[in-house]
Amino acid sequence: MTTQQLTSEIRKKNSFLCIGLDVDLDKIPKHLLELEDPIFEFNKAIIQATHHLCVAYKPNTAFYEAYGLKGWKALQKTIEYLNDNYPEIFTIADAKRGDIGNTSTMYAKAFFEDLAFDSVTVAPYMGKDSIEPFLAFNNKHTIMLALTSNTGAFDFQTQKIDDKALYKHVLETSKQWENSERLMYVVGATKAEYFTDIRKIVPHSFLLVPGVGAQGGNLQDVCKYGMNDQVGLLINSSRGIIYASNDKDFASEAASKALQLQQEMEAVLLTLS
Amino acid sequence: MTTQQLTSEIRKKNSFLCIGLDVDLDKIPKHLLELEDPIFEFNKAIIQATHHLCVAYKPNTAFYEAYGLKGWKALQKTIEYLNDNYPEIFTIADAKRGDIGNTSTMYAKAFFEDLAFDSVTVAPYMGKDSIEPFLAFNNKHTIMLALTSNTGAFDFQTQKIDDKALYKHVLETSKQWENSERLMYVVGATKAEYFTDIRKIVPHSFLLVPGVGAQGGNLQDVCKYGMNDQVGLLINSSRGIIYASNDKDFASEAASKALQLQQEMEAVLLTLS
Repeated sequence: MTTQQLTSEIRKKNSFLCIGLDVDLDKIPKHLLELEDPIFEFNKAIIQATHHLCVAYKPNTAFYEAYGLKGWKALQKTIEYLNDNYPEIFTIADAKRGDIGNTSTMYAKAFFEDLAFDSVTVAPYMGKDSIEPFLAFNNKHTIMLALTSNTGAFDFQTQKIDDKALYKHVLETSKQWENSERLMYVVGATKAEYFTDIRKIVPHSFLLVPGVGAQGGNLQDVCKYGMNDQVGLLINSSRGIIYASNDKDFASEAASKALQLQQEMEAVLLTLS
Repeated sequence: MTTQQLTSEIRKKNSFLCIGLDVDLDKIPKHLLELEDPIFEFNKAIIQATHHLCVAYKPNTAFYEAYGLKGWKALQKTIEYLNDNYPEIFTIADAKRGDIGNTSTMYAKAFFEDLAFDSVTVAPYMGKDSIEPFLAFNNKHTIMLALTSNTGAFDFQTQKIDDKALYKHVLETSKQWENSERLMYVVGATKAEYFTDIRKIVPHSFLLVPGVGAQGGNLQDVCKYGMNDQVGLLINSSRGIIYASNDKDFASEAASKALQLQQEMEAVLLTLS
C-alpha cells in the first residue's frame, strides 16, 4: 500500500485510528476460550465490528509469540483474514525488530513476504545497516521507534548528544538512508509538546502514535502539534478498545469505543478542511 | 541455568564457544531439503557433531520467522531437542526484543516459558521498563545490546552524551535496574580495543561476543581485553561453523571448525590458569 492510498482511506473514513490487536487470553471473554482458536476468533469479531471506523490494525507480535505455535498461527490467520477481506486497511506488525544486515533481511521477509503485512516496527539502536534491509521492500513501510510513550524513554531517547536529544539524531540520521521515504516513526502521545520539534525534522512522514487512552495521551494535543497537511498521523489504541468489555458484547463495546475516537478524529479533520 | 553452572561448563570443556544456529534454506546442503523438516534436521546434525566443543547455542529468531509457521515449529523442536538431550548447554534466543512493560513480559514468557530458553537478547532503546520485565525471571538471563559489530553501531551507539558514548551510558544505567545481576551484554568482536573500557563498567558480567570469523574479529584480542577471572565471555560463531561445507559432510566440517576455535580457546584458558 502507498501512503497516498492510506491518506485517501483516512479522508474517506474521516478516521486515522489504528486498533492494536494485543490479545491476552487472560483478558478476552471466557466464552471464546472454548473455541479452537480463541485469539483469531477474538480478532475476527473485533475486526468485523470496527473495520469501518479505523484505517489500520496493529497486532503486537509479543502477544502471539507468548502462545508459541498456536499464537503464531493465530497471527498468520489474522493477517490473512485482513488481507482477504479488507485489503484497503493498512496493517502493521508491531514487532520492534532490528539486527545486522542479512538478519534484518530475514525479518523483513518474515513480515513483508511470509505474513504480507504492509509495515513493521523496528528499533534504531543498531543503525543504518540494520534498517535499510527493511527499506529495500517496495510498497512496504518501516516504522522506526523515535520517541516512545513509556517512562524508560527518558533513559536514553531524550539524552542529549551535542545538545540534541538522541531521538532527534535518530530522526535526522534516518532521513539520509536509502529509500528513507518508506520510513514512518513511532512517537508516543504522552509527550504532545515534542511533536512541534519532531515535525520540523520530518514534516512529511507518517507518525504512529501509541499512548492515547490507557497510557494517558490526549488526542487533541497530538493533532494540534503532530498533524501535517496530509494528516500524517495514525493514532493507536489497543486496550481501550479491544477490552472495553470482557463479556459477550465485547465486539459491539469495542465498536462503541472506536466510534467515539473516530468521531473525535472527524471533528478534528473538519476544522482543518 | 546459573552463571556458576555456565562457568563450570566452560572450565570442563575448555571452551567458551557459542554456535549460532542461523539456518538459511538457501545455504544448507541440498539433500536435507527432501526431509520433512530440513531446518530442524540441519540443527540436530550440527548439535550432535559439535555439542562437546561448545557451551552455548544461539538460534537467531529471524531465520525461523522468515519461514513462517514451519520455521517457528523448527525453532521449537530445536530448543526442545537441546533441553532434552543437552540440558548442560546454555541456550540463547537471539531475538533482540524490547517493548513497553506488559508487552516485554509477553516476550519474556514466549522465550523463557513457552520455548524454555535460558536467555534472550534484547535492545535497550526503550529503557528500564522495557527490560526489567525480562529480568524478573529467576535463573534466566537477559542479554542486552551494548556495542554491536556492524557498521551501523557508529550511527548512535558510539555517539557521545556528556563526553561518554551512548553504549557506556547503556551499560552504566542498566546496572541500576532491578535484578541487574541477570544481565549479560552483547559486545561486538570487531572492536576489541573497546573491551578495556567496557570491563571497567561491567567487570563481572558475561559478554556475548559476535563477530569473530565471518565479521572479522580476532579471538586473541577479545580475550586479552575482555576476559575476567571467571572467563566471562561467550564467543559466537555462526556462518563460519555451520556453513563450513554445504555437502553431505556439513556436520563433520562444522565440527572441525568448532574444534579449531575450541582449541584456540583452550590455549588461552591454559595461559590464564
